[in-house]
Amino acid sequence: MLHLNLFLMGVGHHEAAWRHPATDPARLADIGHFQGLAREAEAAGFDSVFLADGVEARPDTAHSLASHFEPFTLLAALATVTSRIGLIGTVSTGFTEPYNLARQFASLDHISRGRAGWNIVTSAGDLAARNFNRDANQEHAVRYERADEFLEVVTALWDSWDDDALLLDRASGTFADPDRVRTIDHAGRHFRVRGPLNIPRPPQGHPLLVQAGSSQDGRGFAARWAEAVFTAQQTLEEGQEFSADLKRRAAALGRDPRHVVILPGIVPVIGSTDREARALDRELDELIVPHRAVSVLGDVLGVDLSAHPLDEPLPPLPPVTAINGAKSRFELIRDLAERERLTLRQLVGRLGGGRGHQVVVGTPERIADHIETWYVRGAADGFNVMPPLLPSGLTAFTEHVVPILRSRGLFRSAYEGSTLREHYGLARPANRYARDTDPVAGVAG
Amino acid sequence: MLHLNLFLMGVGHHEAAWRHPATDPARLADIGHFQGLAREAEAAGFDSVFLADGVEARPDTAHSLASHFEPFTLLAALATVTSRIGLIGTVSTGFTEPYNLARQFASLDHISRGRAGWNIVTSAGDLAARNFNRDANQEHAVRYERADEFLEVVTALWDSWDDDALLLDRASGTFADPDRVRTIDHAGRHFRVRGPLNIPRPPQGHPLLVQAGSSQDGRGFAARWAEAVFTAQQTLEEGQEFSADLKRRAAALGRDPRHVVILPGIVPVIGSTDREARALDRELDELIVPHRAVSVLGDVLGVDLSAHPLDEPLPPLPPVTAINGAKSRFELIRDLAERERLTLRQLVGRLGGGRGHQVVVGTPERIADHIETWYVRGAADGFNVMPPLLPSGLTAFTEHVVPILRSRGLFRSAYEGSTLREHYGLARPANRYARDTDPVAGVAG
Repeated sequence: MLHLNLFLMGVGHHEAAWRHPATDPARLADIGHFQGLAREAEAAGFDSVFLADGVEARPDTAHSLASHFEPFTLLAALATVTSRIGLIGTVSTGFTEPYNLARQFASLDHISRGRAGWNIVTSAGDLAARNFNRDANQEHAVRYERADEFLEVVTALWDSWDDDALLLDRASGTFADPDRVRTIDHAGRHFRVRGPLNIPRPPQGHPLLVQAGSSQDGRGFAARWAEAVFTAQQTLEEGQEFSADLKRRAAALGRDPRHVVILPGIVPVIGSTDREARALDRELDELIVPHRAVSVLGDVLGVDLSAHPLDEPLPPLPPVTAINGAKSRFELIRDLAERERLTLRQLVGRLGGGRGHQVVVGTPERIADHIETWYVRGAADGFNVMPPLLPSGLTAFTEHVVPILRSRGLFRSAYEGSTLREHYGLARPANRYARDTDPVAGVAG
Repeated sequence: MLHLNLFLMGVGHHEAAWRHPATDPARLADIGHFQGLAREAEAAGFDSVFLADGVEARPDTAHSLASHFEPFTLLAALATVTSRIGLIGTVSTGFTEPYNLARQFASLDHISRGRAGWNIVTSAGDLAARNFNRDANQEHAVRYERADEFLEVVTALWDSWDDDALLLDRASGTFADPDRVRTIDHAGRHFRVRGPLNIPRPPQGHPLLVQAGSSQDGRGFAARWAEAVFTAQQTLEEGQEFSADLKRRAAALGRDPRHVVILPGIVPVIGSTDREARALDRELDELIVPHRAVSVLGDVLGVDLSAHPLDEPLPPLPPVTAINGAKSRFELIRDLAERERLTLRQLVGRLGGGRGHQVVVGTPERIADHIETWYVRGAADGFNVMPPLLPSGLTAFTEHVVPILRSRGLFRSAYEGSTLREHYGLARPANRYARDTDPVAGVAG
């Protein structure tokens, strides 16, 4: 069975979604909009919803960053109006303390009764760093080194309580068993953390660990830690290569490769005919404001494009080694522009739909065919669905694409499990500290 | 009109609440329990609910610390099932970044449509510090210095967007006005933060600022920043002195003293007769496990009491200058023990009910009389209500005490405003950066 995640993004993933008459940009400030999306995805049996995040603002291109909501608070607000769908939030390891992060995800997992997931990012770029006492961000490799240690601390904190530590024995007055709650006494290069965490072990043991960087450092990190991977892949061959590489790396570390779920992003632009879908795609691209899109693109590519003619190809780019930001996204855009010989205007149009994720334009059958092909040919275990318009693009997908996937036996008709790990077919981690066989982990694992 | 805040605390504020047959300790893990309490308080017209917090765990006394929920995630989950009541969360300035905190409270304020409040604490004790890369906590005075700068940064970040910065002009494609969103470029002793915040200005301008430390440093800080103050006061005279002192200090800084709302804690132990109330009080105290309570008390007082006889007075205590923790709570307990010549066992019983907050035992009329006396005699602008058992103690208060307060014209029958600031009669802060008169602040202020 394939997996489907809804990537939440304001009123749609297309850069110009907020200008399209099918959306209502005032709903960006309305928590009810996001609750409605989560409920709609849950009614369709999606595994999870997911929020991207950054800790910086660029007012001139604010539509992608000026979300009114921060992930923990937003996901908690979604948890209370849903009961089955997973809730995945992005938080950077660069600008928060492991104790705070471990606790907030544990709390979200308790509130949602086992539906929390953490998309781990290390944060690219200097703008974020300058909000946190630094002049510049750390080097790419140092960020991943810090992320590795961060994960060691956080997972240890989640294990600092045994599953059965809370006794609640009224007769003896014993609230918890002190022998089943312990310090972790971590002392490493980046962190010193004593523990224990001040919240019992999460229902899932550990909230689901998700990762989204596809650079060499990112793949190494994902092979060690990630249970699901969001990725941007433009061609079937690239998707197959990426999936095989990541599963090989995980297996080399002794992990079961089936326990790394690969989820490429897909922007489905759906019409009742291919012609109608293409018209919607063109309509959206025509709403892009070129100079704003070019400014964002220049930042990603590390060149100033503000004076570059829109109808010419890209100027020469710096080598990827000079990029201290999102290396894999840099390479994807460079390769896309070269492979298809795109002008700057064309490139901005291509990226406006999905920021580097594949855009598939056509009838529900065409979208379903594409999904099936990638799935059966080993390029994807599922998809990170990025509707260009919200909620209308989600509704088109759930009403017209999901039934086709079901009729082909590719997607669930109803939830079988109740936790996010169960939806993705992932075991509940045993507690590294528990002295006896952990009865709960034994059953679920 | 007086103000009422519900202090949320597991299944009750009494230390032994979880052992009492009127509670169900399994509900500590049930978000529905807390949602039910918030809804019940809202139905009674309370101004707000409030969560205490700490960032350390002591498994041996886990019942007060092993909350299953962290404030931001819990309050977001309460926001979605309520529509009027304020939501106040405690977060320490010691162990988080101002950018993250400003953003999470702004998000909670957007989710709740103007009902967020921040209870500012600086965190006492070394246990918390050791979860955050330190061996010991900072000195009391340094903590308040850091807190002062922290508040400067956070309030500037909230002002980094003008109220009218989001244009959402579809025709021109202008999402936000870059001239109405700006960096704050803070560079101080403890923090360097560039800004802007990545979320529009909160509906309340600034979430309500609350403070709860009553030491000299704490009072100075409260006089500058606090709009509401939680405090523990044992006698009417102490309450009057505290309230007058704080309002005098605020006035000396040019603030309107009515805009510092003083809210002493009160533990109402309610019975249909005084005799019934006293029986409940005694029943609860008999459920205290002395050696656990003594261990916590020893930590607060800075002495090892584990071998001290239960039926003798306290041993000599260190001077308050030697306490780097909660200085005002140390003094309150020392004075209480001396004033009433309490044995260790008696002291533990007195503190078990409210951890130093006043415990009032009696009929609803007696509780209402006490509240009215403190209110009319200038010791309180309202109360931080701490039911010994939850939910039963809250139900007793809302069904029997609130109607008496209403019949005496002391408490609202229905909400007049919709934001937390409006409930407490506090103006919406103007934006320090906005060039023109801010139309929204002008109306609400």
